[in-house]
Amino acid sequence: MNSGASIGIDVGGTKCLGVILEGDHVVTEVRRPTPASPVAIIDTLEEIVHELGDLPTVGVGVPGLVTRQGVIRASPNLTAVADFDVAGMLAARLGHSVVVDNDATCAAVAEWRAGAARGHRDAVVVTLGTGIGGGLIVDDRVVRGTNGFAGEVGHMVIDPNGPVCPCGRRGCWERFASGSALGAMARAVVRAGGLSAITTLVDDGSDVRGEQVCELAARGDVEALDVVNEFAYWVALGLVSLTNMTDPSCIVIGGGLAASGDVFMDPVRHHFARLLYSPNLRPHPRLEIARFGELAGAVGAASLATLSRSA
Amino acid sequence: MNSGASIGIDVGGTKCLGVILEGDHVVTEVRRPTPASPVAIIDTLEEIVHELGDLPTVGVGVPGLVTRQGVIRASPNLTAVADFDVAGMLAARLGHSVVVDNDATCAAVAEWRAGAARGHRDAVVVTLGTGIGGGLIVDDRVVRGTNGFAGEVGHMVIDPNGPVCPCGRRGCWERFASGSALGAMARAVVRAGGLSAITTLVDDGSDVRGEQVCELAARGDVEALDVVNEFAYWVALGLVSLTNMTDPSCIVIGGGLAASGDVFMDPVRHHFARLLYSPNLRPHPRLEIARFGELAGAVGAASLATLSRSA
Repeated sequence: MNSGASIGIDVGGTKCLGVILEGDHVVTEVRRPTPASPVAIIDTLEEIVHELGDLPTVGVGVPGLVTRQGVIRASPNLTAVADFDVAGMLAARLGHSVVVDNDATCAAVAEWRAGAARGHRDAVVVTLGTGIGGGLIVDDRVVRGTNGFAGEVGHMVIDPNGPVCPCGRRGCWERFASGSALGAMARAVVRAGGLSAITTLVDDGSDVRGEQVCELAARGDVEALDVVNEFAYWVALGLVSLTNMTDPSCIVIGGGLAASGDVFMDPVRHHFARLLYSPNLRPHPRLEIARFGELAGAVGAASLATLSRSA
Repeated sequence: MNSGASIGIDVGGTKCLGVILEGDHVVTEVRRPTPASPVAIIDTLEEIVHELGDLPTVGVGVPGLVTRQGVIRASPNLTAVADFDVAGMLAARLGHSVVVDNDATCAAVAEWRAGAARGHRDAVVVTLGTGIGGGLIVDDRVVRGTNGFAGEVGHMVIDPNGPVCPCGRRGCWERFASGSALGAMARAVVRAGGLSAITTLVDDGSDVRGEQVCELAARGDVEALDVVNEFAYWVALGLVSLTNMTDPSCIVIGGGLAASGDVFMDPVRHHFARLLYSPNLRPHPRLEIARFGELAGAVGAASLATLSRSA
């Protein structure tokens, strides 16, 4: 038995990803769909911990506003959840304490300590999935904010007349630049009679998801490349605003869509360089795919649990 | 002679404000129009230092991207300025070193150390003037970023189809929520035949400025109150996005428009409470007018110069 190993679980809008982390390496991973109700989510978390061997050091990343005590106050992409005491409920099941933090904060910790932002004192990590999460590293520290709610970059409004967001407002960045936004963009093209090659990947084009658009674009499909290019513009637009706020030397893109990063990172870099304020008069931050890809949240949750245990 | 006194000067888009600071108190202030060319700006700064008694401790706040060496790399609201070595040129004139930093960073330092954000570990200070500047306090430290360019909140894009900004992009926050944006909003109303009472303040309504709209609103003019209310919405929209990023316990509004804060702060608070993500499930940050009002930048520049001398 490896006493240095820990379990990290990332609760996403659609799936839960669990890993065993040894040092900086993921040695096992499991996936389960994310159920709807709080109790069912706790059931799933407990099952994943059992399946991963019941290690005593457990960290969980969850989306939304998470207090420093591990309570989800609100989470637009988890339905039926408000004031959900993940840390308390899961600890009661497992018989020991667990660390619960915002999923994107976890991802930022992973990438900054051992991943693509390693060595950068000022970094921004965004996770593109069902929504957009964010973690900010400023002056070699994780930004948590007064309540632990910092880094909710997905709800930066980039168009007050844009589509309604589950958070209740209009035109949040995640309505334009998340994995689900890419899927929605592609489905609109399908409805308009485009993206005909999508039928090679899905039976019904009206079901197309972001990852599939990226797969089609990776094969060189011109229509899919157009959709990815528009998506990349929206990603870059938000990253430029974040750069204006915190002036990072590195920006890392993680989340479910990170696995398709090869397809969209170059267009993102292109738009970023064009949109950045005074691009010719300043060094540009590096734009990188998360080293831990879509596992970054789970890896960071495991790291935070280990840190908390050794503290 | 008071050896603890220092000079601070804030170079705005339209005027330069100089102060003598003793402890936390402004004992003298002078104002000069901001000239266009770099050399003329240095002339003006030198004159202000002479007029304020040639104290040896001098700090200057300037708008735009300012390197840690006090060079303005770019500044949309100062014309004809790029790679302008304010620190080097002014030091050569005065015969001693001076501290030069971003104007809003200076304002943030003033308000955080001795003003409306005193005692807050996480705060946001925005200055509403010709443009919008920003200074972020995170975990009891000023956020500077990799190059010293952090806090450029005015160029957060809030509407990609919005008006063109001097920075070259469209729909930056300062096109909607700065003092000049308020003036532009009022002039549009005048052109449409509204704001008739403005003629009590200016000969030609097409010259109306933000401060005058506030003055009219303070008298209870219904049309002016409408303009101020719309302006307050845009201010709040950006403040909500900043709150999502850094989760501050206090937000301070300074800059030239701070003097009119009594008129717009309540509408800003109203819209902020409505627009905040999950407003019922979290503590709200306090929204305050800068204690040092439009002098905050000059006061902070003087403070930074004092700190640098004692370091």
